[in-house]
Amino acid sequence: MEVGMDESVGVIGGGQLARMMIPAAIELGVPISVLAETEGMAASIAATAVGDYTDVETVRRFASGVDVVTFDHEHVPAVVLRALEAEGVVFRPGSAALHFAQDKLAMRRKMVELGLPQPAWAAVRTAAELEGFLSAHGGKAVLKLPVGGYDGHGVRFIGSAADAADWLTPSALEAFPDGLLVEEAVSFSRELSQLSARSASGEFSAWVLTETVQKNGVCTEAIAPAPRSDPRLRGLALDVAEAIARELDVTGVLAVELFETDDRRLLINELAMRPHNTGHWTMDGAVTGQFEQHIRAVLGLPLGDTSLRGKAAAMINVLGGPKTEDLSRERAAALADQPSAKLHLYGKSWRPGRKVGHVTVVSNSPDDPVADAVYRARAVAGILETEA
Amino acid sequence: MEVGMDESVGVIGGGQLARMMIPAAIELGVPISVLAETEGMAASIAATAVGDYTDVETVRRFASGVDVVTFDHEHVPAVVLRALEAEGVVFRPGSAALHFAQDKLAMRRKMVELGLPQPAWAAVRTAAELEGFLSAHGGKAVLKLPVGGYDGHGVRFIGSAADAADWLTPSALEAFPDGLLVEEAVSFSRELSQLSARSASGEFSAWVLTETVQKNGVCTEAIAPAPRSDPRLRGLALDVAEAIARELDVTGVLAVELFETDDRRLLINELAMRPHNTGHWTMDGAVTGQFEQHIRAVLGLPLGDTSLRGKAAAMINVLGGPKTEDLSRERAAALADQPSAKLHLYGKSWRPGRKVGHVTVVSNSPDDPVADAVYRARAVAGILETEA
Repeated sequence: MEVGMDESVGVIGGGQLARMMIPAAIELGVPISVLAETEGMAASIAATAVGDYTDVETVRRFASGVDVVTFDHEHVPAVVLRALEAEGVVFRPGSAALHFAQDKLAMRRKMVELGLPQPAWAAVRTAAELEGFLSAHGGKAVLKLPVGGYDGHGVRFIGSAADAADWLTPSALEAFPDGLLVEEAVSFSRELSQLSARSASGEFSAWVLTETVQKNGVCTEAIAPAPRSDPRLRGLALDVAEAIARELDVTGVLAVELFETDDRRLLINELAMRPHNTGHWTMDGAVTGQFEQHIRAVLGLPLGDTSLRGKAAAMINVLGGPKTEDLSRERAAALADQPSAKLHLYGKSWRPGRKVGHVTVVSNSPDDPVADAVYRARAVAGILETEA
Repeated sequence: MEVGMDESVGVIGGGQLARMMIPAAIELGVPISVLAETEGMAASIAATAVGDYTDVETVRRFASGVDVVTFDHEHVPAVVLRALEAEGVVFRPGSAALHFAQDKLAMRRKMVELGLPQPAWAAVRTAAELEGFLSAHGGKAVLKLPVGGYDGHGVRFIGSAADAADWLTPSALEAFPDGLLVEEAVSFSRELSQLSARSASGEFSAWVLTETVQKNGVCTEAIAPAPRSDPRLRGLALDVAEAIARELDVTGVLAVELFETDDRRLLINELAMRPHNTGHWTMDGAVTGQFEQHIRAVLGLPLGDTSLRGKAAAMINVLGGPKTEDLSRERAAALADQPSAKLHLYGKSWRPGRKVGHVTVVSNSPDDPVADAVYRARAVAGILETEA
């Protein structure tokens, strides 16, 4: 029935990022389908297939039904991506770009090559190497599994090699032939995120710099525009994002998470080549949200206007709280409390601490729009997270 | 998987209004399903059933899988609605309210009862009655089939009874035992639409008054806020909408289409108890769009803030043009021309004159935001409708 503009998008992974691509695709008239890991996931409404994304035949079959394949996460094995690219499957981003989002050691090396600012780091395989790095960097460091982590999983703050003994056994290291990534524990004043998108045509567009708050490795709040950001800081973040997008040949949304140090330098923390939690505010707070922009970018369509829709936007994640059943009263109370809040729920079961949704408030308050947006968004999240 | 807040909505009808409810339901975490008339309709992504909505067993089966049933259109026969309501099915709006959107004669009588302003009208069954009405109202009138019309179908401008001879035969009148509806041809300066919503809880909320442009019975443009609207006019429209919503016990979005006469009176033209073409601008131009508000209202959730997101919004319908295949170049050109325009395509085949999408531009221009929004929205629609 879709005549004329039927270039379709397939998304690997059935989580909330795939779920939030669906409305954007519907609005643009883009047919969308999802390869979900299991039945009943967040993106199940568009799940035309359920299967294992590490199985090349499953991915091949799913890809054969769509024009462009993109991702809910970065966990599809490179070997699967490369085999299918050789057969003509179009992944956006492609395997060559995605490599740097999948492998944190490869990313660190690439940033060195590009001369971009980042924390001190090293690849380590032994306790001795790790102790050497620790003693050179104040006795504290962040140790990361280079592949497969998310939301704080695969990341550990350490004060000695003994803290990572279980990760340095020969069997644990088998999965990581290049070793583990150790990074200096950066003394930062805050975390920032520079969201941008690069189209398959090469067009680049960025949103305003965003301040983010992480707790236990999970993003909990994002504020745009990042307060106390002078033109120098904004320009620096934009230059870093544009260089990464271009030099890594990224297609789609790119999130560059940054540390701002006490002496106002910016250091690259993490990269993601997909819509990102720190950009959820753009759905309601920008003329073009990150999910729409991602769909445009992977199809090679012109990118949309990224302007803010108000003076400030605040996004607060909703985490599962003590109450896990029948939250209809809490939802009603939250909506009644803040009629201008935009509530997004992911259709996921409500386990304590799990990301089950987010709320965004856009403020045009003449006084302090950031404080107003944050206050109101926190109110909604608080009502949802608390047993009534 | 959806735990706790799993009150679900079913939509009868698979057209673009059902399609546009889907993103709103996804964002709110509301499970949604659609009973579509045929395969491959605009709302097919949520179509869990395909069948005949005039068949009570088909509707019963569909309704048994959801908590609340609402509508893409008003064509489900009253006899089907009443039979299933008696069995406990929850339709929102209910059959008693919907009666006045389904039957234009019933609506006219109800407006008389409520003392609300409307054009002169009569029920007619014969050429003589029609000629009598014509001679009392300047020799011109609008004749309407009281049931089943849409987008100008079932509406005819007449200058004599001979213009309606085919509608006044005994066999044609069989479907309309109360006769046809004839209305004076109102001399109006413009058309307006008052969009509002009433929740199952009784809460009422309205958007700003909208100016609309109709061509050949099809809405082509909507502008909000309606220019040259003083507080008296806005208050009048709001009072009319609130009275109708309350007195007819409407649940969900209510569109009241109005004529503004040359002497600045408002006369009720048509009612619709569902999201309406004249309210499409709210999706991008208001904090809460009409599809989200409709979902909130039919579930009895608190209603959202209806404030404008900018100084003015303009919505232009995209109609199928001379070119019906491969419009990918036109879509790209349209998006490139206006990066801030929000394009909505309905996934329908691109037949000339058919509503296949709409475009909304929200303007904050300091000079003339209405003109700016209209100009830019028309530019996008024009590129899509013209062969490149």
